[in-house]
Amino acid sequence: VKVRVLGSAAGGGFPQWNCGCRLCLGVRAGTLRARARTQAQLAVSARGAAGWYLLGASPDLGSQLAACPPLHPRGPRDTPIAGIVLGNGDLDHVLGLFALRESQPLVVWATERVWRGLAEGNAIWRTLERFPGQVRWERLVLGEERPLADGLAITALAVPGKPPLHLASAPPSAEDTVAIRLREQAGGPTLVYAPTVGGRTPLVERLAAEADLLFFDGTFWTSGELGGTAPGAPRAEAMAHWPLSGTGGSLELLERAPGRRWLIHVNNTNPILDEDSPERASVRAAGVHVAEDGLAVDTDEEGP
Amino acid sequence: VKVRVLGSAAGGGFPQWNCGCRLCLGVRAGTLRARARTQAQLAVSARGAAGWYLLGASPDLGSQLAACPPLHPRGPRDTPIAGIVLGNGDLDHVLGLFALRESQPLVVWATERVWRGLAEGNAIWRTLERFPGQVRWERLVLGEERPLADGLAITALAVPGKPPLHLASAPPSAEDTVAIRLREQAGGPTLVYAPTVGGRTPLVERLAAEADLLFFDGTFWTSGELGGTAPGAPRAEAMAHWPLSGTGGSLELLERAPGRRWLIHVNNTNPILDEDSPERASVRAAGVHVAEDGLAVDTDEEGP
Repeated sequence: VKVRVLGSAAGGGFPQWNCGCRLCLGVRAGTLRARARTQAQLAVSARGAAGWYLLGASPDLGSQLAACPPLHPRGPRDTPIAGIVLGNGDLDHVLGLFALRESQPLVVWATERVWRGLAEGNAIWRTLERFPGQVRWERLVLGEERPLADGLAITALAVPGKPPLHLASAPPSAEDTVAIRLREQAGGPTLVYAPTVGGRTPLVERLAAEADLLFFDGTFWTSGELGGTAPGAPRAEAMAHWPLSGTGGSLELLERAPGRRWLIHVNNTNPILDEDSPERASVRAAGVHVAEDGLAVDTDEEGP
Repeated sequence: VKVRVLGSAAGGGFPQWNCGCRLCLGVRAGTLRARARTQAQLAVSARGAAGWYLLGASPDLGSQLAACPPLHPRGPRDTPIAGIVLGNGDLDHVLGLFALRESQPLVVWATERVWRGLAEGNAIWRTLERFPGQVRWERLVLGEERPLADGLAITALAVPGKPPLHLASAPPSAEDTVAIRLREQAGGPTLVYAPTVGGRTPLVERLAAEADLLFFDGTFWTSGELGGTAPGAPRAEAMAHWPLSGTGGSLELLERAPGRRWLIHVNNTNPILDEDSPERASVRAAGVHVAEDGLAVDTDEEGP
């Protein structure tokens, strides 16, 4: 499997448009050793194949596609994007669908819950339905592996989550937030994309143990971190993000995972964005990497 | 008035993600003398003032704000954006509101028609209503001048238009599409922003005649242009865009307008994007400029 990290930040990106915290100021001014990041987005493709699948559809998708030549069209009206796989209905994970609105047929893979939250109840969705069948929904059922093209297959696996902010009044469902497991062939290397994980469960442990390539929720370093910059903000767990640090933090699990591991969906408040910080050093010492926009990974390669 | 052109292309930008026409290929490959452009977006501010108003909210707003230092925050959670003025409800003019979703209070100026099309019937709108009063609507009534801060005042003026694509079943209204006239003070210089103008009317003629700074619909060169790249596409006029060329084209009007004039909302199919094209030479000969991302204009200055 070929993987391109088109974006690696949490909602709002880094720096965030309305944030003047130490990290955002530092990366804008160039006084901090840190890289700007757009909102989390992966693209994956089978070895030797021309088609690509998007994991998520970030609000920055337009500029992310422009920055990635393998995703450019090859004919007058064309795209190598073979499908879009959605793991949750948060706006920072789905808004980019509206960047794909130029009468292009699309295939969207999502749980029924995520699909209905998006395609029903939003008048603007009709922009993606200019002709019958423009958007085709492929339903993901928890735990059932589904074939994509080029020998790829995906499975949606429920992780601790929550409904998206704009559907907060809906009762929670196990289909609200899923990790995506992708395999090129049975027995082949396994990619797990889990940008939103609210805490530890046996399934989360199993995903970490079996992934050859793991992109895991790196949103927050501590539970109360967001409140330090945005007073009154909820704690990490209430936003379905398991903080990295301390006893019981996700870094304990990730340190023992056997595959190649990256943190992704990193919030602008997370001190690991500062490459000279002690927090970043702790991540490094745990053998875990912090994903960056533009990163290219192949399951055939060793490293990083 | 200070003006910053944050984006100058029509919906989809230039190059467009799923387009491999001669212009899109050429700008990607660097074989054409042409500049890439994000989707049309202006920011305006009174001289000496720190606050800015956005005219439109393009899907590229996140990266557009990042690229414009005067629009960066000055405190921990802050923005110099004092308000957003919407002239129509097309997604390429409003989707960027969802880039401003980080619990920031916002003021949106729009006609009742544009406001209801956006704030009603879209569940994702609740993302901008995390607390009561987070988004305040200021109603624009056709032809009535309304004061903003810093001595600025705006007027919404009906131009030939249409409902947005996703609300195409609604009966057309004069409030669907408006030009925005902005003045720093009574009798002072006048800015007109009219990225969508479906044809000639006495009011359109008056706006062109009275604007000291005019940013006008430069979407298409000819009526049938889009169909050449996207077979079956409607004609320019059916999309509420008055083509530039030929007898009865908008360039005839613009050539005679007395103020400084820029074309904006330029579609990726428009040959004027090629700086070496005869069409671009015709525009130049008419004394009209083609807006570019990053352009900064001040009504106190002379030229270009």
